[in-house]
Amino acid sequence: MNDPESSRLSENRLTHLDERGRARMVDIGDKVPALREAVARGRVLMARETLELIRGGLVKKGDVLAVARVAGIMAAKRTGELIPLCHPLGLEVAEVGFDLSEDPPAVEITARAALTGKTGVEMEALTAVSVAALTIYDMCKAADKKMVIDAIRLVKKTGGRSGTFLAE
Amino acid sequence: MNDPESSRLSENRLTHLDERGRARMVDIGDKVPALREAVARGRVLMARETLELIRGGLVKKGDVLAVARVAGIMAAKRTGELIPLCHPLGLEVAEVGFDLSEDPPAVEITARAALTGKTGVEMEALTAVSVAALTIYDMCKAADKKMVIDAIRLVKKTGGRSGTFLAE
Amino acid sequence: MNDPESSRLSENRLTHLDERGRARMVDIGDKVPALREAVARGRVLMARETLELIRGGLVKKGDVLAVARVAGIMAAKRTGELIPLCHPLGLEVAEVGFDLSEDPPAVEITARAALTGKTGVEMEALTAVSVAALTIYDMCKAADKKMVIDAIRLVKKTGGRSGTFLAE
Amino acid sequence: MNDPESSRLSENRLTHLDERGRARMVDIGDKVPALREAVARGRVLMARETLELIRGGLVKKGDVLAVARVAGIMAAKRTGELIPLCHPLGLEVAEVGFDLSEDPPAVEITARAALTGKTGVEMEALTAVSVAALTIYDMCKAADKKMVIDAIRLVKKTGGRSGTFLAE
Amino acid sequence: MNDPESSRLSENRLTHLDERGRARMVDIGDKVPALREAVARGRVLMARETLELIRGGLVKKGDVLAVARVAGIMAAKRTGELIPLCHPLGLEVAEVGFDLSEDPPAVEITARAALTGKTGVEMEALTAVSVAALTIYDMCKAADKKMVIDAIRLVKKTGGRSGTFLAE
Amino acid sequence: MNDPESSRLSENRLTHLDERGRARMVDIGDKVPALREAVARGRVLMARETLELIRGGLVKKGDVLAVARVAGIMAAKRTGELIPLCHPLGLEVAEVGFDLSEDPPAVEITARAALTGKTGVEMEALTAVSVAALTIYDMCKAADKKMVIDAIRLVKKTGGRSGTFLAE
Repeated sequence: MNDPESSRLSENRLTHLDERGRARMVDIGDKVPALREAVARGRVLMARETLELIRGGLVKKGDVLAVARVAGIMAAKRTGELIPLCHPLGLEVAEVGFDLSEDPPAVEITARAALTGKTGVEMEALTAVSVAALTIYDMCKAADKKMVIDAIRLVKKTGGRSGTFLAE
Repeated sequence: MNDPESSRLSENRLTHLDERGRARMVDIGDKVPALREAVARGRVLMARETLELIRGGLVKKGDVLAVARVAGIMAAKRTGELIPLCHPLGLEVAEVGFDLSEDPPAVEITARAALTGKTGVEMEALTAVSVAALTIYDMCKAADKKMVIDAIRLVKKTGGRSGTFLAE
Repeated sequence: MNDPESSRLSENRLTHLDERGRARMVDIGDKVPALREAVARGRVLMARETLELIRGGLVKKGDVLAVARVAGIMAAKRTGELIPLCHPLGLEVAEVGFDLSEDPPAVEITARAALTGKTGVEMEALTAVSVAALTIYDMCKAADKKMVIDAIRLVKKTGGRSGTFLAE
Repeated sequence: MNDPESSRLSENRLTHLDERGRARMVDIGDKVPALREAVARGRVLMARETLELIRGGLVKKGDVLAVARVAGIMAAKRTGELIPLCHPLGLEVAEVGFDLSEDPPAVEITARAALTGKTGVEMEALTAVSVAALTIYDMCKAADKKMVIDAIRLVKKTGGRSGTFLAE
Repeated sequence: MNDPESSRLSENRLTHLDERGRARMVDIGDKVPALREAVARGRVLMARETLELIRGGLVKKGDVLAVARVAGIMAAKRTGELIPLCHPLGLEVAEVGFDLSEDPPAVEITARAALTGKTGVEMEALTAVSVAALTIYDMCKAADKKMVIDAIRLVKKTGGRSGTFLAE
Repeated sequence: MNDPESSRLSENRLTHLDERGRARMVDIGDKVPALREAVARGRVLMARETLELIRGGLVKKGDVLAVARVAGIMAAKRTGELIPLCHPLGLEVAEVGFDLSEDPPAVEITARAALTGKTGVEMEALTAVSVAALTIYDMCKAADKKMVIDAIRLVKKTGGRSGTFLAE
């Protein structure tokens, strides 16, 4: 995943630090509002029995995933409160979806965020996945404390000056 | 990690769902206040160049990790707002630490939470790790969008009726 | 009030649920920013003696209603945090007014919200009324636990594609 | 409901106002921690067709009520942030339940809150009902703007010095 | 005010930094719950005309100070969210009072916070004063942008191991 | 500072109060979006020994000021939640800087806020300074309880109808 050959670093600097290394919000005042979208993914690895418990809930009542979905959407809206240097945004889309995978047993989480604005929404999508994952952990932890939240990453980002990003 | 042989399920039910599958906070009214502690870990996998950027900052200015540490601690205190069925808690300890690892290049995150109370603090420790990881992603994403937040899990939990949990 | 003859349902679907019934924020990305306004009303029914206590306060010090007004305005600004699928909005107007009515004894609450944006502000107006009502209850409950929060409804909505709504 | 004969006023003063009428939090420092519980109720009146839309969702997917339940529970935990003079509390129980009633068509909402603490939790129960009702309104408003949030009241309160309150 | 003779430093270390200088919440797990109280003061210096505007409001309507009082109380309850290393507390008392002084023209603000708990509440009192002062500034700034928020300090602290602090 | 000769009052009214003196958010619906910037300053007066402790931290680890900087930036983003009649804003710039001054011993705090929007950001800059100051107090209070938060004022405001404000 971390191929040293690929030039992953699009800019060789950390834009959140000023020239003396002090934290600051990046000034987006000169950016042009554009349609921006981001999709992030992650998963919660768990015991097969735990997955069956959730699946049972999913089919019959759906509540574990319904609660995690609401938690992810609500957290996406509050990203600017949680992440110190994120801009507060008027999020226009926040969606969270789940897939149950068997091998390994896991709940796969996908979140999409979008808006027309001056800055990207990848943090909103990543935050939605993270908090949905934490909520699944919370709701199942009485049965399984060994769950692992894993592989949270950006899979797609469109809009804005830096162009389209697609994870290979 | 998910050995079907091991009996990982300490209770074969999801205590956050009532008998009809509806979400609810677990009633902790009858629990006895006890000293409870939890330690969680996770990591942010990144390009070697990104790690070097952080390391440079760490040595010279320390800001990426300093900001992530503050974000993790502040998020731990707000866990009950983010995770729908978590109890609001009067957290007494919240700590976040970092190690830079080389192979693979990553920032390893450890968080510890503790209090004397009626319910455990594993969600607080896991939330601290998650939000510290998201903050690292946010601060470095101009340089590296392929970072992956990974392996967030509970490593230790003590106190309370369910006894000590130690990840092997 | 619920005349089956009237065609109250402007759209025969719940736009907050996707085709598989999962909760999502409605995508407002394609909507055009427009001036939008909403007015909501409600009341707190109470014992005549309680109303007199408030009236005394109103004339002499004004504090019960002053505090409820502030609470309503502040809650309107946080509607997007409270209501899971509401969009976070940059509210431009939030006002809360009160009338004391005698028969039955009650505080009538009116709230107005407005902005130029992509989505309506009826939830902001309704939330302002609700939290102002809860605050009145809270401040008077030592004297009167039988108060009833009642008749919270949208009375006017203008702007946006769906046109003007006026409660008859 | 407001029988002037009944002595509804248990104390002829507003304890949230000091002797000069200025708002303040009631000092609960001398109160003894006790098990306290409160149950509140309310309803959302709606068109019969709207109720059918929810019922369809309830049977098939359950999402409108599942989202409203989560919203109510989360709001109960934040009551002390919304209501200016409420004490911040470590809520130990928060539950929200729904019944669909036919005549008039409505969703009936019941919330229960409890803790062992120095002050009662009626505001938490009332807030849970209010925000669950607002969420139902929000999720159904594209179909029905004439819904009315109604009859929010305390039905039971136990624990603490003031004894048991039961609405007749 | 900063007499180098006086030994103002009760402990020659910053307890919020661990031995390697990293930020952390101070562990209060071993502290004994005790009644703790803090009183803080500050003032908003302003033009004489601005003070007259407030005084007029105070006599006739009271709203500037009423709103500032509510803002201060609400902020005191959220101190643990604002100040990164403050513990979240179940505040039991929060009061904000005002005096109008003539020479120099100013609103003097006093706040009191108290609880029975493991840690002191000086930050809650200081936060209440600060946010009340900011609110006065906000409400009067159309008339006077030269106001100065000044002299915010702890005047009294009682309870806990470190004993009583009284500003001379 | 309060020269009665100077005409400091640009408008002889408090725009946050309606004609009957009731609190309301100022309607900014008719304002034109413009680039707006504000700079605020303040300081924390402290014992010389306390300043040396911070300076030591600054050189070696930087944490007291790093934490205060993050706290100030995060608070600036939440100004609309803290100050009752402030509009919620999509802040585009928030910066906090520090200078250590010797005579008197103090940390000087400067904050800058900016956005393109309908209303000014002076409250955001003032809130950033205030919360950074409170955080410095919190982190150093074990060593020095006599610190004083002082001289918080607007030093510059540009953009919008009221033109440029510069403190002399």
